[in-house]
Amino acid sequence: MGTIREVMHKKIRTISLLDMPAWLYQAESLPNRNFITNSEKELIDLVRKYGEFSKADLVAFTDYSRTKITSCIQSLLNKKILITNNITEYSGGRRSKTFSLNGNLGLVAGVDIGATSIDLAIADFSGKSLVRFSEPATVKDGPIKILGRACSLLEKMLKENDLSPEKMNGIGIGVPGPVDFSVGTLVSPPIMPGWDRYPIIQTVQQWFPSANVVVDNDVNVMALGEINQGAGKGVDNLIFVKIGTGIGAGIICEGNIYRGSSGCAGDIGHISVDKSGPLCHCGNRGCLEALAGGPAIAERALMAAQAGKSPILMRYYEMNGQVLHTEDVGDAAREGDAVAIEVIRESGQYIGDVLASLVNFYNPEMIVIGGGVRNLGNLLLSSIRQTVLNRSTSLATRDLHIVFSETGPDAGVVGAVNLAMDYIFTLSEGSADPTGE
Amino acid sequence: MGTIREVMHKKIRTISLLDMPAWLYQAESLPNRNFITNSEKELIDLVRKYGEFSKADLVAFTDYSRTKITSCIQSLLNKKILITNNITEYSGGRRSKTFSLNGNLGLVAGVDIGATSIDLAIADFSGKSLVRFSEPATVKDGPIKILGRACSLLEKMLKENDLSPEKMNGIGIGVPGPVDFSVGTLVSPPIMPGWDRYPIIQTVQQWFPSANVVVDNDVNVMALGEINQGAGKGVDNLIFVKIGTGIGAGIICEGNIYRGSSGCAGDIGHISVDKSGPLCHCGNRGCLEALAGGPAIAERALMAAQAGKSPILMRYYEMNGQVLHTEDVGDAAREGDAVAIEVIRESGQYIGDVLASLVNFYNPEMIVIGGGVRNLGNLLLSSIRQTVLNRSTSLATRDLHIVFSETGPDAGVVGAVNLAMDYIFTLSEGSADPTGE
Repeated sequence: MGTIREVMHKKIRTISLLDMPAWLYQAESLPNRNFITNSEKELIDLVRKYGEFSKADLVAFTDYSRTKITSCIQSLLNKKILITNNITEYSGGRRSKTFSLNGNLGLVAGVDIGATSIDLAIADFSGKSLVRFSEPATVKDGPIKILGRACSLLEKMLKENDLSPEKMNGIGIGVPGPVDFSVGTLVSPPIMPGWDRYPIIQTVQQWFPSANVVVDNDVNVMALGEINQGAGKGVDNLIFVKIGTGIGAGIICEGNIYRGSSGCAGDIGHISVDKSGPLCHCGNRGCLEALAGGPAIAERALMAAQAGKSPILMRYYEMNGQVLHTEDVGDAAREGDAVAIEVIRESGQYIGDVLASLVNFYNPEMIVIGGGVRNLGNLLLSSIRQTVLNRSTSLATRDLHIVFSETGPDAGVVGAVNLAMDYIFTLSEGSADPTGE
Repeated sequence: MGTIREVMHKKIRTISLLDMPAWLYQAESLPNRNFITNSEKELIDLVRKYGEFSKADLVAFTDYSRTKITSCIQSLLNKKILITNNITEYSGGRRSKTFSLNGNLGLVAGVDIGATSIDLAIADFSGKSLVRFSEPATVKDGPIKILGRACSLLEKMLKENDLSPEKMNGIGIGVPGPVDFSVGTLVSPPIMPGWDRYPIIQTVQQWFPSANVVVDNDVNVMALGEINQGAGKGVDNLIFVKIGTGIGAGIICEGNIYRGSSGCAGDIGHISVDKSGPLCHCGNRGCLEALAGGPAIAERALMAAQAGKSPILMRYYEMNGQVLHTEDVGDAAREGDAVAIEVIRESGQYIGDVLASLVNFYNPEMIVIGGGVRNLGNLLLSSIRQTVLNRSTSLATRDLHIVFSETGPDAGVVGAVNLAMDYIFTLSEGSADPTGE
């Protein structure tokens, strides 16, 4: 049985990991850095999630007394974490003041590093996006070049918009590989030479010393974007499946990213679908990724085309200069090409087979499909749906929604901003009320 | 985006579900039933998890001020939820008083309804088991007979031990089928005629009106037993796999049971392992249960024996009167029978194949194997381990433990007691500090 000393040890590690960001204890000259109470944290979480609120809302909602709410709001106003909105709103004949998060408190940035692109956004503390930028980049160029490029772009974006680099309080970064979240490094990423255990946080902090930098797997970040600003808004238990060159899942459990015990939860691309299937780059046979990833789909279509079964696909192949892209398969299917339709249907079945198992195990409320193969369209989606419905238990599929991502190509960068915000506001574990109230 | 009104609506549903138990608001004559503060709840959770503690431990551990801790402890002593232990313990030369949960506050019962047995336990509020009883029973007899039998046994156990039925504050019940946790009923259980949507809670409350009754799937309950008193103590993310007549999993996520969005998470018995495999009672082919459940293991061994491949298994078959049990396969393997060894190894591979997928997806810290096939021994366990190691990603298996259950046949009843205790103490969501502190 764990003794209280053991628990304390564990607790101390937790606190050091989620250290309070500089801006918070610089904001006031209090000697005790733990100056946000649990109740104040609760109000901050509410306003982050649901926007502005009035005192009456909070009294009804939180079960705190009116006195307590009044003192919490006042304290958060003093700390400049909340601001008062003088929006006129009639409630029982009286105008009620509302409160919301102080956007001017600081800036956060989201950086989405993809295999072939960098996406960036800068937002204020109310979550409002201020600047957005994207450019092509090859992740294989390695961390020094890619992170350098991302940071100098951020600097440029700040400068061009008259935003102060000192106000940059949080930077969330999504990267396309397995991440050890506790230290913020990639772990043996398969297609990213030079990134293995590279100190991303420390590198970015050279550019932005005031920022709390947090790194996560791109799919986790996309899942976060989807529950904050996409199809999954308000959904507690969700699986976001990214199907592109690789296949991975981001798991939302009770409203938060679930990372698993080593931080690699959601790595579904190497789940075995067909033991005698094609060889995967991981060394096993018949992994989902080797059967239903973008390249696998294009490859199967090309083989059929080269066997003379699809003049339409062959036309795309010649048009591209002897290359067939995954999108071409989607376009050919929309033209009615039987081979393309069959390849897409079959890919949906492979994906559906894996998801059917995960639905039985995890019983999510929603599965969101995102990533490059989105453009294969409803044919893919309906094949996935049908397979899951056939193979999962009826109780697990009764209220299950399987939908395409609504954030689309923005999922990553939107999620990265949310990741940074979440990180900054993850304070409650080390906080307490120093006044002894 | 969810408005604050929508959240409030959700919140209200939460409160009514987890209504405060009668004993708590009867304990004091306060007009406000929400009289346990969040901080007090935090101390209660700590003492439930780690036993007794001193004031100094709490000050160091919780980050609350000494003043705050002192007033919380005093308040919980007044409410008779805590008691003072005068155990002499030297800390820096001074004796320090310790506090623990008041066992006399009430009683909880755990009821584990299996396919062929009822297991019962009565414990006090400190979690100490006071009485324990088991008897054979057939769940197919239906809810009226089985629940009646369980309740009259509980009454008898109370009476024989001079325990008052009015002190029965919580009853946790584990049942061998899919449960809609929000209403506490079974949903289309495959082998339990009469149990579908039968009002278990209301029935048991006819016997024990003072009790808060909570019903969950037997495997969830076993998982809870395992993290409280078994191999999984202190583990945050765990999968408990019960392999008996059926196969199911209980999922522990960040220390709590994860039930999924319809309450049926963990239903892994019907995950497809071999699409051309044997027909399962669910209607699909090649479900894990149809390949590696107890009956499937015995069946495959019997077929080999009847084909003349194993005189040892044939001997067991004749000895039992033309029946081969799963245990016989384990015994034959221990005698060195090659067929039995191969059947067990193969079953471990089927189970390992499914677990390998789940390890990639969920990245648990520990998988606990329990249920009837435990007695197939280390051969089964090593086959499962080997398959998972071969098929899961190296990051996900780096710190993964795959072990047999330590609570063994007690897992269900121990877990049911914990389920009842958890339910009783799940108060924080509706609680607040009425004094406005």
